[in-house]
Amino acid sequence: MGVVKKAVIVCVGDELLAGVIVNTNAAMISDLLLTVGIPVAWTLVVGDEEDDIVDAVSRAAKDAPVVIITGGLGPTQDDKTRDAIARLLGTELVRDEEIVEDIRRRFRSFGRDMPPSNAKQADIPDGATVIPNPWGTAPGIRAGYEGSTLYAIPGVPGEARRMLTEQIIPDLGEGALIRSRVIHCVGIAESALADLFHDLATATHPRMAFLPGGGEIRLRFVAVGTTEAECIAALDEVERVVRERAGQYVYGIDTATLEAVVGDLLKEKGLTVGTAESCTAGMLASRIASVPGASNYLIGGVVAYSSEIKTSALDVPDEVLAEHGAVSEETARAMAEGARARLGCDIALAVTCVAGPGPQDGVEAGQMYLALASSGGVDVRGVRVPGDRDQVRTFATTFSLSMLRSHLQA
Amino acid sequence: MGVVKKAVIVCVGDELLAGVIVNTNAAMISDLLLTVGIPVAWTLVVGDEEDDIVDAVSRAAKDAPVVIITGGLGPTQDDKTRDAIARLLGTELVRDEEIVEDIRRRFRSFGRDMPPSNAKQADIPDGATVIPNPWGTAPGIRAGYEGSTLYAIPGVPGEARRMLTEQIIPDLGEGALIRSRVIHCVGIAESALADLFHDLATATHPRMAFLPGGGEIRLRFVAVGTTEAECIAALDEVERVVRERAGQYVYGIDTATLEAVVGDLLKEKGLTVGTAESCTAGMLASRIASVPGASNYLIGGVVAYSSEIKTSALDVPDEVLAEHGAVSEETARAMAEGARARLGCDIALAVTCVAGPGPQDGVEAGQMYLALASSGGVDVRGVRVPGDRDQVRTFATTFSLSMLRSHLQA
Repeated sequence: MGVVKKAVIVCVGDELLAGVIVNTNAAMISDLLLTVGIPVAWTLVVGDEEDDIVDAVSRAAKDAPVVIITGGLGPTQDDKTRDAIARLLGTELVRDEEIVEDIRRRFRSFGRDMPPSNAKQADIPDGATVIPNPWGTAPGIRAGYEGSTLYAIPGVPGEARRMLTEQIIPDLGEGALIRSRVIHCVGIAESALADLFHDLATATHPRMAFLPGGGEIRLRFVAVGTTEAECIAALDEVERVVRERAGQYVYGIDTATLEAVVGDLLKEKGLTVGTAESCTAGMLASRIASVPGASNYLIGGVVAYSSEIKTSALDVPDEVLAEHGAVSEETARAMAEGARARLGCDIALAVTCVAGPGPQDGVEAGQMYLALASSGGVDVRGVRVPGDRDQVRTFATTFSLSMLRSHLQA
Repeated sequence: MGVVKKAVIVCVGDELLAGVIVNTNAAMISDLLLTVGIPVAWTLVVGDEEDDIVDAVSRAAKDAPVVIITGGLGPTQDDKTRDAIARLLGTELVRDEEIVEDIRRRFRSFGRDMPPSNAKQADIPDGATVIPNPWGTAPGIRAGYEGSTLYAIPGVPGEARRMLTEQIIPDLGEGALIRSRVIHCVGIAESALADLFHDLATATHPRMAFLPGGGEIRLRFVAVGTTEAECIAALDEVERVVRERAGQYVYGIDTATLEAVVGDLLKEKGLTVGTAESCTAGMLASRIASVPGASNYLIGGVVAYSSEIKTSALDVPDEVLAEHGAVSEETARAMAEGARARLGCDIALAVTCVAGPGPQDGVEAGQMYLALASSGGVDVRGVRVPGDRDQVRTFATTFSLSMLRSHLQA
């Protein structure tokens, strides 16, 4: 492994210093640079003053071979990044007529004439090269300066991200590479998972992090190597170990979501699902419906917040409610059976809990009963979790989706 | 007015440079400093290295008489801000036993023993003063250095904001107090609201900001004064103006939420509510249920995702669906009527929309129909909004709650 190349980020904009805009670019750029093994040494935010930009960039170039500059490439008097780079290079700005034509075309495609001020965006310091920006009017600038490479890109977050991903990262991709993988787990407590992976958690490579939240646990692994293949091999190996020891809890990789994975399983098996919710009051159905194409398997649901609705819409017997209470194994079971019959779905999920504040009718806050009714009968699970009202409700939807996933994989 | 006093912000934390955390503190601090007339000259983010912090702070003190340092005050080995300040001052860290006792008491109040490492948070550079932190374990540090005043505060955003507002701003503004008020509006477009308040938006005091999101608009006013009464009077006056011009759109102040305000109105009138949801699939009912005590007025709801459920659970006539489609004024009306009858609630809200991707059966993404059925009949509203699947669904629930609020206030 070679010496790690570092970067410095210089963000330009009065609006950043005035607190009008939160600097999301800095985190986005840092994150993307890390994927090619380039950590950020420091980040500086300066205003729209040419002197300040010149000072910041020259300082940055002393500290790092890669300098990313965002902002100050717009068409107004305030936009000084082009002038600052020209001054650093000891050259003049030269208007690139091809770029002027590009900008004019872009305006025309929106049915507008290019305002004269936008021509300024085609001024490139002599000796620098243009980084094309098909996503906006301001092209980027690439220039060598005192042994460093300067990359200036617009401050608009969407444009900055695309230019970085498509044009700058490939340019930087030599030396140490960093690749990461997230393994999504559900249905197991964080402490139990930690016990299974003590060796991976303390290993120096790949680096592992536990990221719990909302009843799920993400395991993130970061691998460093000199080639893509080397990183991927290291990540494949830890994924193999995780699946070997805890395969039944792993529901997906990287951008997977529990609701999308469950949706795919339902589609694959040609099954439909419906819900019966008390405390979560529609949150579970809403989460299932958040996946585009959910209409292929989600029939609908009943929000049975009051006892009357549990009886009238889900046929929960009055005696069950009277004897066991609304938050009980028996009520969850009857809700799931009722939902399956009334909605005409293959599988019905039922949730009843005390979201808090509690206790409520003698049941503590955080206590939940989850039922799943299918052609094979009804499964019921009782769990108690800590947390506030919102957390308890989120946990309940996650655990319910986790039950459905286990059922579909059995 | 004298010379404008400037500030520099130094944010400390490897996690900021790794892009794991977006630096929201910088914008928050800049915003608060501006309210007492102190602009930020530049902001620097450095990692958890003592040398880097020392270098950054000494550079900052050269450029500005006020230096705000965030982060690096935790109990671990990584936390180096205390050491860096001691080095700058040329003094040693001295453990303040009173602060150790404070931290111990704080842990005890959660029923826990203080871990030994936390005692480190009571180490204060000799010659510096303590800024008390009643909101967390890490106290802040105030120190004079080379003609500047350094203020070090924790990086936890909630603690940083409170320490700045309650302890640093009064120190900087020589007794200046900052108070803010948020006025929540719904049911009006941002541009229409902006037209009504051009004078307030451009006034220098109280400073106003438009904060739109999820179909609601928050107007935030920040007042500065030497007494609490002076600030409150200025905020009362702008609130009076806002209510005079746009009273019907104002649903609450500061921590108010639309669902809680609607819940209070329902309780006050002794009315119950139920829902019939298609695209939002339970999100509306879930939002109503997020308020503790919602069982006083929320009966329940039907998630009618498929056409079959719209017919079987809500009695939407087949002809209406066939003739007008699932996303239509007529279907929304029938859903609301059906829900009111079937759920036995005083008021039923119905939502049907194309959440996207679209178009779907000839209806564009973002098109929604919202209905409200009560003893007085049915109101239906058609709206089209931009945005992705999640935004469209969130807007639909907000607009539906807004309709309910208008109805209850009529």
